[in-house]
Amino acid sequence: MKIKLGENSYGKHAIQLSKIIRHADYHEFRQIAVNTTLEGAFETAYTMGDNTRILPTDTQKNTVYALAKEHFKTSIEAFGLYLANYLTEHNPQINRVQVDITEHLWSRIPVDGQPHPHAYTGNGPEKRTTQIIQAGDHIAVSAGIQDLLILKTTDSAFEHYIRDTYTTLKETSDRILATQCTATWSYNNPQQDFNALFNEIRTTLLRSFAQHKSLSVQQTLYDMGKAVLEAFERVQEISLVMPNIHHIPFNLEQFGMQNNNEIFMATSAPYGYITGTITRD
Amino acid sequence: MKIKLGENSYGKHAIQLSKIIRHADYHEFRQIAVNTTLEGAFETAYTMGDNTRILPTDTQKNTVYALAKEHFKTSIEAFGLYLANYLTEHNPQINRVQVDITEHLWSRIPVDGQPHPHAYTGNGPEKRTTQIIQAGDHIAVSAGIQDLLILKTTDSAFEHYIRDTYTTLKETSDRILATQCTATWSYNNPQQDFNALFNEIRTTLLRSFAQHKSLSVQQTLYDMGKAVLEAFERVQEISLVMPNIHHIPFNLEQFGMQNNNEIFMATSAPYGYITGTITRD
Amino acid sequence: MKIKLGENSYGKHAIQLSKIIRHADYHEFRQIAVNTTLEGAFETAYTMGDNTRILPTDTQKNTVYALAKEHFKTSIEAFGLYLANYLTEHNPQINRVQVDITEHLWSRIPVDGQPHPHAYTGNGPEKRTTQIIQAGDHIAVSAGIQDLLILKTTDSAFEHYIRDTYTTLKETSDRILATQCTATWSYNNPQQDFNALFNEIRTTLLRSFAQHKSLSVQQTLYDMGKAVLEAFERVQEISLVMPNIHHIPFNLEQFGMQNNNEIFMATSAPYGYITGTITRD
Amino acid sequence: MKIKLGENSYGKHAIQLSKIIRHADYHEFRQIAVNTTLEGAFETAYTMGDNTRILPTDTQKNTVYALAKEHFKTSIEAFGLYLANYLTEHNPQINRVQVDITEHLWSRIPVDGQPHPHAYTGNGPEKRTTQIIQAGDHIAVSAGIQDLLILKTTDSAFEHYIRDTYTTLKETSDRILATQCTATWSYNNPQQDFNALFNEIRTTLLRSFAQHKSLSVQQTLYDMGKAVLEAFERVQEISLVMPNIHHIPFNLEQFGMQNNNEIFMATSAPYGYITGTITRD
Repeated sequence: MKIKLGENSYGKHAIQLSKIIRHADYHEFRQIAVNTTLEGAFETAYTMGDNTRILPTDTQKNTVYALAKEHFKTSIEAFGLYLANYLTEHNPQINRVQVDITEHLWSRIPVDGQPHPHAYTGNGPEKRTTQIIQAGDHIAVSAGIQDLLILKTTDSAFEHYIRDTYTTLKETSDRILATQCTATWSYNNPQQDFNALFNEIRTTLLRSFAQHKSLSVQQTLYDMGKAVLEAFERVQEISLVMPNIHHIPFNLEQFGMQNNNEIFMATSAPYGYITGTITRD
Repeated sequence: MKIKLGENSYGKHAIQLSKIIRHADYHEFRQIAVNTTLEGAFETAYTMGDNTRILPTDTQKNTVYALAKEHFKTSIEAFGLYLANYLTEHNPQINRVQVDITEHLWSRIPVDGQPHPHAYTGNGPEKRTTQIIQAGDHIAVSAGIQDLLILKTTDSAFEHYIRDTYTTLKETSDRILATQCTATWSYNNPQQDFNALFNEIRTTLLRSFAQHKSLSVQQTLYDMGKAVLEAFERVQEISLVMPNIHHIPFNLEQFGMQNNNEIFMATSAPYGYITGTITRD
Repeated sequence: MKIKLGENSYGKHAIQLSKIIRHADYHEFRQIAVNTTLEGAFETAYTMGDNTRILPTDTQKNTVYALAKEHFKTSIEAFGLYLANYLTEHNPQINRVQVDITEHLWSRIPVDGQPHPHAYTGNGPEKRTTQIIQAGDHIAVSAGIQDLLILKTTDSAFEHYIRDTYTTLKETSDRILATQCTATWSYNNPQQDFNALFNEIRTTLLRSFAQHKSLSVQQTLYDMGKAVLEAFERVQEISLVMPNIHHIPFNLEQFGMQNNNEIFMATSAPYGYITGTITRD
Repeated sequence: MKIKLGENSYGKHAIQLSKIIRHADYHEFRQIAVNTTLEGAFETAYTMGDNTRILPTDTQKNTVYALAKEHFKTSIEAFGLYLANYLTEHNPQINRVQVDITEHLWSRIPVDGQPHPHAYTGNGPEKRTTQIIQAGDHIAVSAGIQDLLILKTTDSAFEHYIRDTYTTLKETSDRILATQCTATWSYNNPQQDFNALFNEIRTTLLRSFAQHKSLSVQQTLYDMGKAVLEAFERVQEISLVMPNIHHIPFNLEQFGMQNNNEIFMATSAPYGYITGTITRD
């Protein structure tokens, strides 16, 4: 039985880049982290230490910074597309380029009711993401949100589940539902108004979460994804990861008090881990 | 030379508590982490394993949850004061109680232009903090902000510093200034409208940061603190910690391109670490 | 175009379990984190909030603790196999069970040259892992190491790579090679002496890394994987993830000093990210 | 009431430095993170943006790298002393230099029973630390261990504590005691054989922890500190921070099983937080 190289890839991850785009009356500040991942004719690099077809990860990093000057002007999707295409065109040895970009969001500080022209606050754990995959002429674009903390204090139940030997959970018609949501959706076409779409899809996800009467995390997840597919024909499918961050009612009865769904322990582990993809037939 | 116990304390840290406060037309969702720290007549606990004066940290945790039901209604400061006083009054063996509370902030999700009554997004790394110290009748209250990410893309210089053998830094009249700011201020009196004051002080800090023409992080730090002391007589002193999170211009010249303060590497280490307390004479 | 549920799964993650196994003359202390992931006939749970086929994640957690008493006695693989089979047999609605276990390793403290019978130190970031997948009768077992920090101060070069417009990296015949390695290998059969095999494979990986004269991370990765496949017929394939944690020579020449590969900046971002699977034909 | 600058300091933190020390038959690999903190005549820097007495943090970083070539040869204490003295002597505007060094520990990989001459594994969360404070001629040296995970599966009780309204904890004569210990001790003199002392003190702490019959974390903490002071006259005092990382017996009785102190939930929050300083009269 012969030993051989199977799947492999390499690239540079966590390339931290920030950019100031100077508009007439304000600065736009953008901060991104870029991962590049290459697949191609690299077998002899692994098996023989032959680096002649290796584009060093250091050069990949330099390429990201150099291209950002002219080509990171609007969306992370547009920049990722340019970068993936540049790497493809300049490197015949590469079969597949994957570019992942995570954007840290900043808001202009309101001063006396107006956004300040060049001062910002960081928006928090929520990040905007994109993934571009280019394999020759084939190009796929997906976009997403990462670490979106969302929570509702009511309109969430969990009942009628299986009961067995090890069941101790009590059914509840009114609980806190909280998650650190990651959503990723694919576009049917690499030409889109990515910034406008992102904002509309984010609003749709939040509205759906807020208005949904949840019977389970699974159902809420499906409802949020379905709302996006119904509203945006250009979205081909959407995947959601919704860890269930439990807020457990604290037992006040042991002290002769009632806990009318008021006081909770927020826990970080263990947590439910619910995933689902909503797609088109 | 005799061996003896010096300074010591114990308590429960990271007590994760969330609360729903039900108002007529909306829910208020609050999430806090509480630390309790006790000092007192605990010498024999250390030297002999005598636990008879030890209030277990588990009981401290239960106390936090139980008192939160009736007494966490407005600010974290008011709740911390109640808690510190409760522990003091019920435990004659305690000389000093310290309560530290960190509040994770949530905002109601805007749906069709209105904040939704019971759905929220988490606000991000920025947290609101308080520290209460009660030693017998003496009570000290401080408040603060933690992990406030602020950045300005201009109006920041760094020039005219010492040059020596190991200097390589170039002077600049225009750089990015970014920090993950922690601010802590002490009130001159434990009776305040803590929520209103917090919001006004936060606005003052942000305005000062935005409008300041910075010659150094030190000067910006001082300016921000001074603005708070000038505007709020009830603030006795304020301490700021402002790590300088460097965004370093990427060298595009090596590729024949100009970098007109556009493209930067965001770095996490090493970082400048600037602290200062602004106080009254 | 109809909207429908695609891939989906749910389970409980980060179930933190520790166990004392009492032997005649010492205690064995084991600490694991378990993830369970279920796939099956859950479509109506997502689309209609029908929970009647849902085994709650809370019950999954209870099952892990309850089964650990009798069935976590030797390896994490053996426990994972028992757990996956239990969930499969008791839940006809499940098509596929995935169990991921991460073991935090502890060592008995040496006291006067002997391992103490019941006191331990934690071994650090290195963790042992396993993944069990059971789909009906089909059972797959893989094992691994996570966060294995390895470094060599010489016998590592990187030369003869592609040079283009954006190349600035200098070729080197002698550099530090450091990585936080994750290795995962699959067994050809779910009946193995897992603990003995793990230790031997770990030794093989370390020996291979230490003795290899590296022309690139890719080559070292391949060499380590090949060594395992050559020595262990029961290993079907092995995947390695080896982020290249750069230690960059600090430029001392600017101060008139020589840096003979002595003084380095350890960096955390960006980093090279090298992956590869070594398999059998 | 005049506003003025109070306590202040600045410096460079998280300076990541690694060094290869080449011995005749093996390489010694050392990895440290250095913080420098300066106090002095910096008032006008804060109040007026006057940088003429400011040694930039970038220069502090360069100084660390440059001095490490010749002067980081044995212990982190010796290097910290040299660095603090260098900064003091070259900067009359500085009143007080504080140098904090954290060392990440590496071990040579055993290959066929022998430590390999230039390949290493990282030792884990445990780190060695030192703090040097130099104020003019006055020099203070302390040393320590950080993130030392220690655990014992028996010989730990917690009983006879205060019981009040909110007590729910059950007394136990046999529990797991686990902590992520930080120890810091001060030397009575800045001339010591720091490496030898560190190893002996670490061994003393571990032996004391292992052999102690614990009535409380407080008592164990005191016992460990006392053992160090008794054995090492050159240690003036020692402070220990011992968060109580709870391993809570899982309630198996609800499933008709007995839990004879076998199966535990490891928790990360909340945790007891126990501190104490043991000193000489």
